Amino acid sequence: MTNNSTYMHWLRERILNEGIYLGNGILKVDAFMNHQVDPLLMQGIGYEFARRFREQRATKILTAETSGIAPALAAGMMLQVPVVFARKSKPLTLSHEPYQATAPSHTKGGQVTLMVSHEFLSGEDRVLIVDDFLASALTIRALANIVQQSGAALVGIGAVIEKAFEGGRGALRDLNIQVESLAVIEKFDGDKIIFAE
Amino acid sequence: MTNNSTYMHWLRERILNEGIYLGNGILKVDAFMNHQVDPLLMQGIGYEFARRFREQRATKILTAETSGIAPALAAGMMLQVPVVFARKSKPLTLSHEPYQATAPSHTKGGQVTLMVSHEFLSGEDRVLIVDDFLASALTIRALANIVQQSGAALVGIGAVIEKAFEGGRGALRDLNIQVESLAVIEKFDGDKIIFAE
Repeated sequence: MTNNSTYMHWLRERILNEGIYLGNGILKVDAFMNHQVDPLLMQGIGYEFARRFREQRATKILTAETSGIAPALAAGMMLQVPVVFARKSKPLTLSHEPYQATAPSHTKGGQVTLMVSHEFLSGEDRVLIVDDFLASALTIRALANIVQQSGAALVGIGAVIEKAFEGGRGALRDLNIQVESLAVIEKFDGDKIIFAE
Repeated sequence: MTNNSTYMHWLRERILNEGIYLGNGILKVDAFMNHQVDPLLMQGIGYEFARRFREQRATKILTAETSGIAPALAAGMMLQVPVVFARKSKPLTLSHEPYQATAPSHTKGGQVTLMVSHEFLSGEDRVLIVDDFLASALTIRALANIVQQSGAALVGIGAVIEKAFEGGRGALRDLNIQVESLAVIEKFDGDKIIFAE
């Protein structure tokens, strides 16, 4: 096939060519992940998550709607495990007392409550969390909180893009698990994107 | 590989075994599509959409967040075209004047506004709409309205599950395009699910 660095080089190229820095630490990647999704890029991302986390023998992937679904599903296809996406609003079909945790809302401001039905996470599960961004890690911590409530084991955290300057990796250190980001942005310099390493 | 009916038989089995009829025409398929997603089933669904719509030479797939993303992405992987998901709330990153259309909200009641940025649909595009359910078709009509605003050609509509008794197919007839559902529910009889044919 190809080696891992090929896909990740491709991801960085896409970020450089199509990502738009809006200021205040906000990177718009609507062209390939957060509004329009490039399916082949997602397959590369899924392949790379699978490669890095295969040894963790996850039984479920957990993400949050909406933007986490595409990379999480791609990873689920490669690892052949089900993907659970936490809901941010309670549909008619959700069970009465889901696992819940709150996180800041990136779209609306304020707080959003993430909900996962008891049916889909249990004490037997080994859970890999996948999300689009690792920034402050507050959304990921909310997902980790839900995993803890369920009694499942959290075995890894994977993000497509890390904004290292927001400190999320440090905020996850106490969880003492494998954390992987496929592209790490060290900082923005004007409107230029500077990758780590 | 396999023939088309294998995947679609599998989909019907999953609906029968894991779908839960909640009354009032509401079918809960949280176990494999709307909260937990089975990635292999989604690949089968994507394969089948690709088989049925390949001749339409779509350049984009359009869906609505959240539950449409998984089947749309699977179809995009098989057809190798980008997937655009209409947003229901305006993230910071969305352009100022997106295409907009309103549809009833299934999760919250009331109306929801679907938004698509001008960047991702243009008059050159040939658009395939993919969604999880075809019921009253009001969400799909809102997506079709957005396609029309963009000047793109609407070349097909695909739904994973059709609830035939809600009349959505008739409501799409005037669009005069190919409409495909992978599993068609004729009615519910008590809590039993009765497929068409």
